[in-house]
Amino acid sequence: MDSSGSTMQTHFVDINEEAPEAHPVAPPPKQSTLHRLKVWIKETFFPDDPLRLFKGQTLQRKLILGAQYLFPVLEWGQKYNLKLLKSDLISGITIASLAIPQGISYAKLANVPPILGLYSSFVPPLVYVVLGSSKDLAVGPVSIASLVMGSMLQDEVSPNEDPDLFLKLALTSTLFAGLFQAALGILRLGFIIDFLSKAILLGFMAGSAVIVALQQLKSILGITHFTKNMAIIPVMKSVFHKTDESKKKPKLFWVSAGAPLVCVIISTILSFAIKAQHHGISVIGKLPKGINPPSTDKLIFNGTHLGLVIKTGFITGILSLTEGIAVGRTFAALRNYRVDGNKEMMAIGLMNMVGCTTSCYVTTGSFSRSAVNNNAGAKSAMSNVIMSLAVMVTLLFLMPLFHYTPNVILGAIIITAVIGLIDIPAAYLLWKIDKFDFLVMLVAFFGVIFISVQYGLAIAVGLSILKLLLQITRPKTVMLGNIPGTDIYRDLHHYKEAARVPGFLILRIEAPINFVNITYLHERILRWVEEVEEDNILKDFSLQFMILEMSAVSTIDTSGVSLFKELNTALQHKGVELALVNPLAEVLVKLRKADVGHNNIRDDYLFVTVGEAVTSLSSTLKTPTVREEAQETVVEY
Amino acid sequence: MDSSGSTMQTHFVDINEEAPEAHPVAPPPKQSTLHRLKVWIKETFFPDDPLRLFKGQTLQRKLILGAQYLFPVLEWGQKYNLKLLKSDLISGITIASLAIPQGISYAKLANVPPILGLYSSFVPPLVYVVLGSSKDLAVGPVSIASLVMGSMLQDEVSPNEDPDLFLKLALTSTLFAGLFQAALGILRLGFIIDFLSKAILLGFMAGSAVIVALQQLKSILGITHFTKNMAIIPVMKSVFHKTDESKKKPKLFWVSAGAPLVCVIISTILSFAIKAQHHGISVIGKLPKGINPPSTDKLIFNGTHLGLVIKTGFITGILSLTEGIAVGRTFAALRNYRVDGNKEMMAIGLMNMVGCTTSCYVTTGSFSRSAVNNNAGAKSAMSNVIMSLAVMVTLLFLMPLFHYTPNVILGAIIITAVIGLIDIPAAYLLWKIDKFDFLVMLVAFFGVIFISVQYGLAIAVGLSILKLLLQITRPKTVMLGNIPGTDIYRDLHHYKEAARVPGFLILRIEAPINFVNITYLHERILRWVEEVEEDNILKDFSLQFMILEMSAVSTIDTSGVSLFKELNTALQHKGVELALVNPLAEVLVKLRKADVGHNNIRDDYLFVTVGEAVTSLSSTLKTPTVREEAQETVVEY
Repeated sequence: MDSSGSTMQTHFVDINEEAPEAHPVAPPPKQSTLHRLKVWIKETFFPDDPLRLFKGQTLQRKLILGAQYLFPVLEWGQKYNLKLLKSDLISGITIASLAIPQGISYAKLANVPPILGLYSSFVPPLVYVVLGSSKDLAVGPVSIASLVMGSMLQDEVSPNEDPDLFLKLALTSTLFAGLFQAALGILRLGFIIDFLSKAILLGFMAGSAVIVALQQLKSILGITHFTKNMAIIPVMKSVFHKTDESKKKPKLFWVSAGAPLVCVIISTILSFAIKAQHHGISVIGKLPKGINPPSTDKLIFNGTHLGLVIKTGFITGILSLTEGIAVGRTFAALRNYRVDGNKEMMAIGLMNMVGCTTSCYVTTGSFSRSAVNNNAGAKSAMSNVIMSLAVMVTLLFLMPLFHYTPNVILGAIIITAVIGLIDIPAAYLLWKIDKFDFLVMLVAFFGVIFISVQYGLAIAVGLSILKLLLQITRPKTVMLGNIPGTDIYRDLHHYKEAARVPGFLILRIEAPINFVNITYLHERILRWVEEVEEDNILKDFSLQFMILEMSAVSTIDTSGVSLFKELNTALQHKGVELALVNPLAEVLVKLRKADVGHNNIRDDYLFVTVGEAVTSLSSTLKTPTVREEAQETVVEY
Repeated sequence: MDSSGSTMQTHFVDINEEAPEAHPVAPPPKQSTLHRLKVWIKETFFPDDPLRLFKGQTLQRKLILGAQYLFPVLEWGQKYNLKLLKSDLISGITIASLAIPQGISYAKLANVPPILGLYSSFVPPLVYVVLGSSKDLAVGPVSIASLVMGSMLQDEVSPNEDPDLFLKLALTSTLFAGLFQAALGILRLGFIIDFLSKAILLGFMAGSAVIVALQQLKSILGITHFTKNMAIIPVMKSVFHKTDESKKKPKLFWVSAGAPLVCVIISTILSFAIKAQHHGISVIGKLPKGINPPSTDKLIFNGTHLGLVIKTGFITGILSLTEGIAVGRTFAALRNYRVDGNKEMMAIGLMNMVGCTTSCYVTTGSFSRSAVNNNAGAKSAMSNVIMSLAVMVTLLFLMPLFHYTPNVILGAIIITAVIGLIDIPAAYLLWKIDKFDFLVMLVAFFGVIFISVQYGLAIAVGLSILKLLLQITRPKTVMLGNIPGTDIYRDLHHYKEAARVPGFLILRIEAPINFVNITYLHERILRWVEEVEEDNILKDFSLQFMILEMSAVSTIDTSGVSLFKELNTALQHKGVELALVNPLAEVLVKLRKADVGHNNIRDDYLFVTVGEAVTSLSSTLKTPTVREEAQETVVEY
């Protein structure tokens, strides 16, 4: 009987006698189809109303605003001064010290030559500084996108056997990633990245971290087999463990920011001093000197691998966009400015499109470096320029120094970075708040580990969408009762003091009514009626009115409209009349259009509130309700 | 400024002074995770509560009820009597006279031997009569499923070049169709057929009708090229045109019901008399005598065509199920009894599983024959048995009579049947009520005609789901105003008399809040705030409270919970406080769980109604609002 399974005591109430005047349900103002289409397009694709800025401005001003919209640097560049530059200089050099070792490491994760990590930290920041609207974002290669690109491409081409082809595919994937990203921004389809929910990303990142850590550990342990230099691992571990903790203590963040470079320098010196390569420790080896060579000749569009690069471009593009936008939004919220999602997508997309022609693989805003950037006091995107210049100096003059850097140190840098991606407290919070989200997270986690990056993601996204569809397919219907002494009607299962009104069944439908749920709603509503009738017969009351509270029915389609016709037919067989309360404008218009003779939706059965409906209809109740009894009767429901 | 683009006059109202006592938002009763899971499963998969029947019964009674649940014939068979049989006898013979010519014709549509149409009208009805719960359904082959099976299978195998293999594939597809159908019923996943909305079916059926009619016309016109017997076409046309119209006039339905058989008889006699085959008119030719041969040896599961038969089985299974269930529900509603969707799926599924072992291809409840059945006065599923017996007599004794039936008459029967599938008034109604549904219909129509049956359907279903997702991704937010003299707050754009309350922004969110829409909601809500602030500054009011009316937020997930934290941060920067009105039990529980210190959701900022929120909060308004002015001020909004 009781849909939620709990036994609950419901009592009937007396119907409010002193009836105030009822308010008629007003027909909404008429709107043409074209007008409604315009409103729909605006609300769907332009919720930020980007043209608002231009309204009522002179042509010249409009042009300036337009240029500033496309190139935010024109706006903040005007107000830029020496004091800001000083801050940006410090933070720029700080992130460069992080970007150089991370760049080399992440390039290895992507199975491309280490030097690409530095190339990718030089050109893309210069593009972003012109187009980007975040003050905190530090752009360059990131671990997740590197890992995904590396693992997706090696499904078809081995990076060891054919490194040249592999590099070409990586650069071409970067082009497609950029194209997708820019297209999402231009077409204002940014909501697509919303489908990667926090739960999915949490599971996905933890899964990726496990894969990467295991890969790197294997190579590290492999090396220790040949050498006695094992001590370096616990040392590294303790260093990075400290670093990791310092995330929560901004005071120690200089350790965090500087540690990777310091480790690289110390280990390189040690490695050079003991001639490590003769002891079986693999080192980076010779790296080419000089800044990014052009790479347009490396973009290949022939049929064999085209599908793969498009797929890889799409997935790495979406993932890196998600990271970049999320990072930008996080810091914008912290510092109370706003980043424009669509503009950021275009900026990141163009950055990758330019990048792939200058030997850069996929880049975006990095969470770890942006955090350091923010902590080091960055004031504008100019810190990216400083970082870029520092990387340029490295590329031009310091490359020979990396010759003796042990690969093991890069592995350690990677592990440190990815271990930070595993967020146990966040997972626990998911468990606490929403078990289904926790399930989605687990699916993403195990999917990535045991199946593959792309399928793990796809299954988790599919599951999330299935949940949304199930919510629409099985909308909640709630029985309402009166809170005694008021005109308020609330869920009988939520508010214990709420009481049923004799002769009435008051239901709230809590979802749009459409083709996927009319069958269910029809069945469920009739079951409510049957249950209440059984009750009523026992208690000598007869059910005469069903009131549907429609304020939560946000939209309705043609199938939904037909539900009311069918409900009316079914209810009339039972001698029950249907009244509607507070249908929204759009819903009311559609019901009216479908119901030519006003047979199903009678004007006198339309009310603004449940209270008014009950007051107005109870005067027409046929059976005299036994008030005194009702007052005292407590029925099990 | 105005989100819906229309210019509208909004006036501010005075805040109700005599504050009644506010009602606290009650915490909902505590429920364990296991309990909530049980409720969710029950509401999602068992909305009809099938076990309700068995509650409080003795074991013996439970067994009887269980047997009757599985085999409805046990229930209605008990009460069956001679009077009912008389009615069923008439209707059974009537539908047999329709089933025989239609069966032969539809088998040709499916590219299988004509005799299969009769086999399929003999065994499946006998299965359905035991398992089915509809009193009106007349089962057998139907045009849509025949067409789809015929056209999907011939993508890989030509029915002319390898008719034997084609037949095997058809029977194996029927097995898979039956398996899918029964599985949907057993797993209670019947909502899957709901995704084929009326709009999709309308477009799909019209598209199929056009394809079939063109195919048949081609062969008919091809024949007229060889013979002078052209007159038969306009004759047939006029006959069937009449039949078609008579659908709306039940008095003439005997013409409709009898016409095909009469036409077949007359044309066969004519064809025999003039020795039509010597004049180039193709006739059916020799048909085997005798009832269904077993066909288990014809089911093939080897790898080459397995994918095709599974796909064909799935699509024809879903389509025929949709037709069968819809027909059953339509007549049940007309005659005020109920069919159990899940049980019908099992019945139709088993019917096809038995069918494919006895030389039957896919069958379901036919709309045209069920209508005739109902009109002819059928009282129970027994009329299917009568029809089946009539078909058996035909199979055993009358087959030689069909030797001379011209194929052209079968083409005409097919055309008549499919032309009836084109429903222009229904399409016009779609246009009138919901333009998007109309678009979906057009996509299904042209998709089926210009691409293929399966892709046309898939694109239309995809578009429908995209619309649902877009609705969730871009939920409506509505600004509420007070209806003067009441405690009622309604959409400012719908109710012209509603007026804004100075110092307050009252928004209704009309969708569940989850990962796909938090970004949008965040952006949209802040735009509302900015717009109202611009207004308020102009009018010397300052915005101090944002009230979110949450009753239409049916669910929330972990991402949705984080929206409130972010909103609070953003609003605090603006000096605006956030109050929530009437969050549903589930939503409130999740908000509380995520908000440990009650920092984001303060107890004193939670209200049961907007009226109470405004009354309670307006006493704490910092700036004295200029009441007299406000009363008269009419601002453009």
